[in-house]
Amino acid sequence: MQFSSHLLESAVNAFSRLPGIGKKTALRLVLHLLKQDPAEVNQFSEVIARVRSEIRFCRNCNNISDTDICSICSNPMRKQQMICVVENIRDVIAIESTQQFNGTYHVLGGVISPLDGVGPDQLFIDQLTERVKRAGTEEVIFALSPTIQGDTTIYYIQKKLHALPVRVTTIARGISFGGELEYADEMTLARSLQNRLPVENYVSSR
Amino acid sequence: MQFSSHLLESAVNAFSRLPGIGKKTALRLVLHLLKQDPAEVNQFSEVIARVRSEIRFCRNCNNISDTDICSICSNPMRKQQMICVVENIRDVIAIESTQQFNGTYHVLGGVISPLDGVGPDQLFIDQLTERVKRAGTEEVIFALSPTIQGDTTIYYIQKKLHALPVRVTTIARGISFGGELEYADEMTLARSLQNRLPVENYVSSR
Repeated sequence: MQFSSHLLESAVNAFSRLPGIGKKTALRLVLHLLKQDPAEVNQFSEVIARVRSEIRFCRNCNNISDTDICSICSNPMRKQQMICVVENIRDVIAIESTQQFNGTYHVLGGVISPLDGVGPDQLFIDQLTERVKRAGTEEVIFALSPTIQGDTTIYYIQKKLHALPVRVTTIARGISFGGELEYADEMTLARSLQNRLPVENYVSSR
Repeated sequence: MQFSSHLLESAVNAFSRLPGIGKKTALRLVLHLLKQDPAEVNQFSEVIARVRSEIRFCRNCNNISDTDICSICSNPMRKQQMICVVENIRDVIAIESTQQFNGTYHVLGGVISPLDGVGPDQLFIDQLTERVKRAGTEEVIFALSPTIQGDTTIYYIQKKLHALPVRVTTIARGISFGGELEYADEMTLARSLQNRLPVENYVSSR
């Protein structure tokens, strides 16, 4: 692309470094900004600078936070004895959006994946075991992706927690609501048969 | 979406106001920025603020520019007597990328479209006629979209230029390179038959 303005060019380049945004989309975004109110664009620019410099990670659970301890860990209305272990911040947002979970989280920062060079030391696993010991946690719920890496991570952490008086569970795997049986993969179908529920439980959980 | 950080929330909201970017994509972009080097994020933030406050529109051709007169209008190596009339800045970039045009541009800022409330007064048409008079332009080339609105705009401007000693042309419409005849629409096919070229011209223009 040939630009008649260096400033336009550097703005387009900056946007096109974002994931999933090519040069043409970047140009469209920059031209959109040029049409906006200057005050609004300044606000946008400012929030980007602030989000990088001011956002912190909760010392307790490693979730994104405005303060040292996040609003979930410091909320006395939430069950601090229940920890849901997730891979990343997006998973926290997904579970929070269900409005069904009233415990706390622990963000691992990934799953164990030797092929990608991610070992247990790169993840916040020690912080989790420390936290379980310190806080007298009653239940650790794994909500990791149903992959080999996810299962390896569950297995590894579970062994670490073995000696502690804590209940360790994982979220149910099964056929999604609205999913068709015939299109489900064999692994999911087999597991959902294995972990079948009494119908009373099923009805009450709806 | 439920966020544990107000700053994260406002950054996601800011990104999701951009065209074609929803909440989930916005979240992905913000989390990507959080992983970047703070200096790079600051640079990104700064370029956004600068692009809005410092970019100017060329006084001559209305193209985006870092200076009062853009680098194309002030370039003595380009044929200042030849003006290519385009709809917007994206079209300038597209034509510049071909590296085949050595004249100057005139950015109209749109096409006449009464249904969208765009009349001749909202476009930079008077500036074009003024410019043609002032600069002793030899040729005005229309490179507008092949739509009813584009054709209306050509017709309107051509009438305005009628009295002036200037050649008025439009870029060729026809079958695209790599296009299949059978899939071409009737209008394009009809026009490309009407405006057929002697084979010598065709070969020499490749």
